[in-house]
Amino acid sequence: MNSNYYAVIMAGGVGARFWPMSRTSQPKQFIDILGTGESLLQQTFKRFEKICPKENIFIATNSIYRELIKEQLGIPDNQILCEPIRRNTAPCIAYANHKIMSKNPDATVIVAPSDHVIVNSDLFHDVVLSAMDAATKNEWLITLGIRPSHPNTGYGYIQYDENVMYAADNRIKKVKTFTEKPELEMAKSFLTSGDFLWNAGIFIWSAKSCAKAFRQFLPEVDELFEEGKRFYNTPEETAFINETYPKCRNISIDYGVMEHAKNVYVLSSDFGWSDLGTWGSLYEHLPKNKHQNSIVGDNVMTYDTQNTIIHMPKGKLAVIQGLEDYIVAEDSGILLICKKSEEQKIRQFVTDVEVEKGEKFV
Amino acid sequence: MNSNYYAVIMAGGVGARFWPMSRTSQPKQFIDILGTGESLLQQTFKRFEKICPKENIFIATNSIYRELIKEQLGIPDNQILCEPIRRNTAPCIAYANHKIMSKNPDATVIVAPSDHVIVNSDLFHDVVLSAMDAATKNEWLITLGIRPSHPNTGYGYIQYDENVMYAADNRIKKVKTFTEKPELEMAKSFLTSGDFLWNAGIFIWSAKSCAKAFRQFLPEVDELFEEGKRFYNTPEETAFINETYPKCRNISIDYGVMEHAKNVYVLSSDFGWSDLGTWGSLYEHLPKNKHQNSIVGDNVMTYDTQNTIIHMPKGKLAVIQGLEDYIVAEDSGILLICKKSEEQKIRQFVTDVEVEKGEKFV
Repeated sequence: MNSNYYAVIMAGGVGARFWPMSRTSQPKQFIDILGTGESLLQQTFKRFEKICPKENIFIATNSIYRELIKEQLGIPDNQILCEPIRRNTAPCIAYANHKIMSKNPDATVIVAPSDHVIVNSDLFHDVVLSAMDAATKNEWLITLGIRPSHPNTGYGYIQYDENVMYAADNRIKKVKTFTEKPELEMAKSFLTSGDFLWNAGIFIWSAKSCAKAFRQFLPEVDELFEEGKRFYNTPEETAFINETYPKCRNISIDYGVMEHAKNVYVLSSDFGWSDLGTWGSLYEHLPKNKHQNSIVGDNVMTYDTQNTIIHMPKGKLAVIQGLEDYIVAEDSGILLICKKSEEQKIRQFVTDVEVEKGEKFV
Repeated sequence: MNSNYYAVIMAGGVGARFWPMSRTSQPKQFIDILGTGESLLQQTFKRFEKICPKENIFIATNSIYRELIKEQLGIPDNQILCEPIRRNTAPCIAYANHKIMSKNPDATVIVAPSDHVIVNSDLFHDVVLSAMDAATKNEWLITLGIRPSHPNTGYGYIQYDENVMYAADNRIKKVKTFTEKPELEMAKSFLTSGDFLWNAGIFIWSAKSCAKAFRQFLPEVDELFEEGKRFYNTPEETAFINETYPKCRNISIDYGVMEHAKNVYVLSSDFGWSDLGTWGSLYEHLPKNKHQNSIVGDNVMTYDTQNTIIHMPKGKLAVIQGLEDYIVAEDSGILLICKKSEEQKIRQFVTDVEVEKGEKFV
């Protein structure tokens, strides 16, 4: 295993879409949402354990999740980067990159979300190793792009240049444009054109290339973290970050860096990826029984029920009759029943509940 | 208040129909199924407190419910008649009547189930007092009959003789026939004929008339309890009953006595009665909001949901979207979702659950 390989797993998100399972006290990445016995974070960590030494894997998160992460992953405090306040992906990556640079200036780093699903982990492993190798040998900012299967309007898209590819792995192509969540018509034309990929939000680069890009495109963010040079990996790091972090702009890595840089490449692949951003996309990735029901829970009985997602706590007895295309979910004593087609209303339900009850439920 | 007036409330039933709320450990009569803050038993007891002295009200039940009853009603052990084993209504009534006779041979007694709903309690009070008076002055076995509103096939029917009525209250008429749950066509013809009433299972008689009827029609049951004469209302009563009760036939008062006796009268009335035998009949009696939802539970929010019964434990947060004509009920951590039209399947679900899990859930 290459001791210069590092991983940064971003695990700071909250998320109301999978309410009631996902709440501030326990966001999606910490839940066994696929019913596998492992949280999405644990699955992500396992994937990266095969790519770099365990002690080179860092988790960037909000400080409120520190104990939960130690519990789920059994890693020491020094591998948990705690943001005192939410500031989107760019500050988080700048911080992690500075910390890694101070340990190992020759590092090659993969940055990835903690709450996505990857179905074909062998292919993912192969893809990442190739991208890590390319990023070690070239001053490139590499992203992973997924060959789209349908005109999803919830994803960002990456357009690549068909004529500029990496000789050592011609799946790696030069990026032309980034597009945020498009309208349906545009998404359809992206699919037709054939040179657009879904942006999986996974980045691979050398720590040096990353640092250089920040200096160029987000110099004020870079300077804030540069000032802490002597504190990284010392007992003073936390105090420095707690003071510095709130001064940072709230900006994403895509918007702040990737869309401006000229040395961006994308490795196009199809390892069965989803950001599990909606119940619908979760349903796609859950095992289904002969009635096309996806059931997480060991004590659920269904009758005349089809195409329904049921998510019950361990041991909970539920008898469900006569539902088609529904979500039935319970967690921490909160029950949700909702048509799958109305899942976008769940955020509103949560807001209503909070207004009505004067209490935080997310 | 007439100190010769006594009441026997039958509260020994189990009941799977309102599962998961109603289970052996907590049958329907002990539940606040109407969301009023009182169980059906408590409501029944309250109605009889206005008719006879509190100490003259006896609860006939299974011994496993003794503590629950003391808790709900705050009455002493001597007013709780504990059957060691289930033997239907005739043995229960024979026991209660012997016990009351040994206290007061001039007693007039009303016998009633504990788990019915009575909407118009003023009219009920008036009806019962009139029947008690008639039963005191006449050697009659009086039942309460409800003027039927629809051809219900779940109820027993009583046909009366239009020409033979009590001068002091011409709502009291002589009974011609008893009919158990009829087929739909027969139930329809009963309604058309106009001289059929629903059998509410409420009986009023003098203790002496009741004793006489048992001696005549169920002599072997009567003799068993006659033998215990010296034990009633003594510390030996329980031991005697525990030994005697299992020897009794399992037979209902209707089948064993009422269908044979010639001195049966019915008081026809309409005080808004239901045996709450089904979710459908419960729904009729629950308050409904503007969407025709009946909601028991203080933390339930509904969207696009109509004609649905929701029964949630106190404090339980439930967000329910997109249901029409459903039952959603939770109790003791067991969740049931079922179309109202399929409520007759609930018994089967419970059986399936027990077979599947090898565990008693009812």
